[in-house]
Amino acid sequence: MDLSWEHFCQNHFDFPSLGLALDTSRVGWKRPEDAPAAGALAQAFADMQALEAGAISNPDEQRQVGHYWLRDATLAPHPELRAAIEASHDQIRQFVQEVHSGRLQGANGKPFTHLLLIGIGGSALGPQFVAHALGTLQDAMTVHFFDNTDPDGMDRVLNALNGQLAQTLVLVISKSGGTKETRNGMLEAQHAFLKAGLEFERHAVAITGAGSALSETAVSEGWLERFPMWDWVGGRTSETAVVGLLPAALQGLDWEGLLQGAREMDQVTRLPELSQNPAALLALAWHTLTQGNAEKAMVVLPYKDRLELFSRYLQQLVMESLGKETDLQGATVHQGLTVYGNKGSTDQHAYIQQLREGPNDFFAVFLEVLKDREGVTIDVEPGVTSGDYLHGFFQGTRTALAENGRASLTLTLEQVDAFRVGALIALFERAVGLYAFLVGINAYHQPGVEAGKVAAGAVIDLQGKSLSWFQQNSGRA
Amino acid sequence: MDLSWEHFCQNHFDFPSLGLALDTSRVGWKRPEDAPAAGALAQAFADMQALEAGAISNPDEQRQVGHYWLRDATLAPHPELRAAIEASHDQIRQFVQEVHSGRLQGANGKPFTHLLLIGIGGSALGPQFVAHALGTLQDAMTVHFFDNTDPDGMDRVLNALNGQLAQTLVLVISKSGGTKETRNGMLEAQHAFLKAGLEFERHAVAITGAGSALSETAVSEGWLERFPMWDWVGGRTSETAVVGLLPAALQGLDWEGLLQGAREMDQVTRLPELSQNPAALLALAWHTLTQGNAEKAMVVLPYKDRLELFSRYLQQLVMESLGKETDLQGATVHQGLTVYGNKGSTDQHAYIQQLREGPNDFFAVFLEVLKDREGVTIDVEPGVTSGDYLHGFFQGTRTALAENGRASLTLTLEQVDAFRVGALIALFERAVGLYAFLVGINAYHQPGVEAGKVAAGAVIDLQGKSLSWFQQNSGRA
Repeated sequence: MDLSWEHFCQNHFDFPSLGLALDTSRVGWKRPEDAPAAGALAQAFADMQALEAGAISNPDEQRQVGHYWLRDATLAPHPELRAAIEASHDQIRQFVQEVHSGRLQGANGKPFTHLLLIGIGGSALGPQFVAHALGTLQDAMTVHFFDNTDPDGMDRVLNALNGQLAQTLVLVISKSGGTKETRNGMLEAQHAFLKAGLEFERHAVAITGAGSALSETAVSEGWLERFPMWDWVGGRTSETAVVGLLPAALQGLDWEGLLQGAREMDQVTRLPELSQNPAALLALAWHTLTQGNAEKAMVVLPYKDRLELFSRYLQQLVMESLGKETDLQGATVHQGLTVYGNKGSTDQHAYIQQLREGPNDFFAVFLEVLKDREGVTIDVEPGVTSGDYLHGFFQGTRTALAENGRASLTLTLEQVDAFRVGALIALFERAVGLYAFLVGINAYHQPGVEAGKVAAGAVIDLQGKSLSWFQQNSGRA
Repeated sequence: MDLSWEHFCQNHFDFPSLGLALDTSRVGWKRPEDAPAAGALAQAFADMQALEAGAISNPDEQRQVGHYWLRDATLAPHPELRAAIEASHDQIRQFVQEVHSGRLQGANGKPFTHLLLIGIGGSALGPQFVAHALGTLQDAMTVHFFDNTDPDGMDRVLNALNGQLAQTLVLVISKSGGTKETRNGMLEAQHAFLKAGLEFERHAVAITGAGSALSETAVSEGWLERFPMWDWVGGRTSETAVVGLLPAALQGLDWEGLLQGAREMDQVTRLPELSQNPAALLALAWHTLTQGNAEKAMVVLPYKDRLELFSRYLQQLVMESLGKETDLQGATVHQGLTVYGNKGSTDQHAYIQQLREGPNDFFAVFLEVLKDREGVTIDVEPGVTSGDYLHGFFQGTRTALAENGRASLTLTLEQVDAFRVGALIALFERAVGLYAFLVGINAYHQPGVEAGKVAAGAVIDLQGKSLSWFQQNSGRA
């Protein structure tokens, strides 16, 4: 691998307005322009432009793909969509103001200080990532999650909230209202409020599609508020929709900064000039490293505890978007891009041994954050801080991998804040979209998910039938 | 894939004394005995027997491999080792009794109710997994971790402990005492106690090797207690050593039950009869699925929130043990077994799409837990509970993968308790050991880890030199 200064300069891309830089010097190419797929980028940009203009870019489901409009409603293809997006922001502002001011209170007349978010997949991974990345002890509300249908897991959360349900706001998130894990979580929460002598509807808020089962429940039971989910926003790209913004706003995070970071990243990642477009560079690097054919996994290693959940967020965004059996022409391709990783330098002590010496079946994406901590720091050695060590381990690991021919990309962020988190999300959304166009697949459907649900439904159905048979036949010989 | 009843019966292995079952019916073989490596198992058992008898099974480091003795000290090859293991258990018992009874108190005369564990890699992953798997709100102490050298990450933990440092016991874990992340964490903690006006040494406990830098610090500063770490226990197999047992005991968990689970699993996994030995079945399945050649990743999906950190624990145990460039003969092999996964059914909503439709480059290990929750449960539909849905989703997902030719193994546990967690740990330790013998590599060294540390050291060193140059030359033109 060429580790020369000249090579580095040709592969270091700085985006000062975003407070972000991308280093592609360890991808293995001489310059990004030499990548095999570089010539195909123009078409991918054109496809992306059509998508943003409102084309049916999810042909299987006959849907538009509108997550980019969420950050800049002026781009929405119809005035009604624009108005709906802007209205959702107003609704968030007003509702959060009611909650934080204490004007809106729970059944016992207490202000809300806890938030229980009930959702799974795209309705939890983004909110969890953002809550963890940006949260502090000074937040307006403490956030808890039901993200599964594990009774014991829900009991743990409810035990932690014991005695505080009167001050807990519940946010139920499901586009269709038919997601069973979320429906079960809602029923378990409802039961806990009932046991605590609290009217659930005076604590409950829904984010759901118009006319969904959840929407109907919220109306008929008289919940506090309903927020919209639109069919042109997929779950895995809904962090900049109400799904992500409302919990962030309730927690007291800078949700408008997050939107702005995503908006500014969108602007940059629309530029057709490769060197000015970090999403195009990322997509091209992925394509080069995987041969456009899922040949390597992506190990995501942020050197910052706050970004520990980013890889989980990316698992859905990347793997659900790119893991497809057929391409847009119907040919069998078995595309995908496996994502794993937690954080550095911690993960170095877990599996850097295999990354360096085992199969060369991955590339790493390092995230480096320049700002170490708030306030003063101490020296752990003369002139050296804990944060210097964190940077040193990142650089050492990158070098140790490069020495053995293991490729990597490095994203450098000035700091972890709402703007940068929004920018990161938009960066990977765009890279996934461009990559999907490069390899010719639909990034916006998930036909493989249904099979598991159907098979699970059959199991539950069989259980119900067996139970009913036993009940009807009990006592007979 | 053969999904017949007959095939299932030939591939379902029940271990009632362990409260555990293993289903290999979706590995793709007819019977385990037909696996290509089945004939090589006898030699692997012989190698394992020699290892347990005290052979130098880590030849590069000229070390014995003794983690199996930890669970049954009567097996240790020398009376001194046996006495040392038994003494460590007595020391844990006595120290924890002092802490829990309130006889041992912090600098301000307050009892200890919080535990701050400072460690990384093998000194954190096991304790984190166990603390999360078995913890309840009724625990004797609340456990917190410094598992990185991220200043902001440490600040978050310290902020959460704000005002409670007087009741916080600090456990610093490092075999050599030379692990910089842990050293930095210790210094950051020391600084926080100093700022709070508390004598750190009256809160500090070390687990470290005899004569290490950390041991010397603990002695010279007069820390509360020192516990041993032995060179015949590797970090990634130290959960049943003091490293894992002491924090579990302080938290109030059943550490002796954990040891017993591991001991009983060891007994079963020594049996040469394949159908009676779940570790041999696992190792053979891995070998069959990966062609003994790292061809597939292992996706670990426990359907239980409490087991969410198991895959992280396994990342180190499996990838650091098996990710090796050369075999025992020195031939270049690039062995490994990639591990990722979090929990079901949550992960279904993230990447089951790719698992079902993308590249067939993985196999799944499902963990199913029969006990749903403590206490009564509610119906979410007539006769159906949230836990029934969790089981239904597991079965549905397994079926959906099998339909598309994706292999899986299923481990069924009666419940998550200390005994079962100890058994799980011992099961995978043994499977890793047997697999390593099958493919002829040293599972007990980590030569690739050093390179990153050396490269990082060079970065820190350069920083020190640059800083010193700037300091000496400041003010000159």
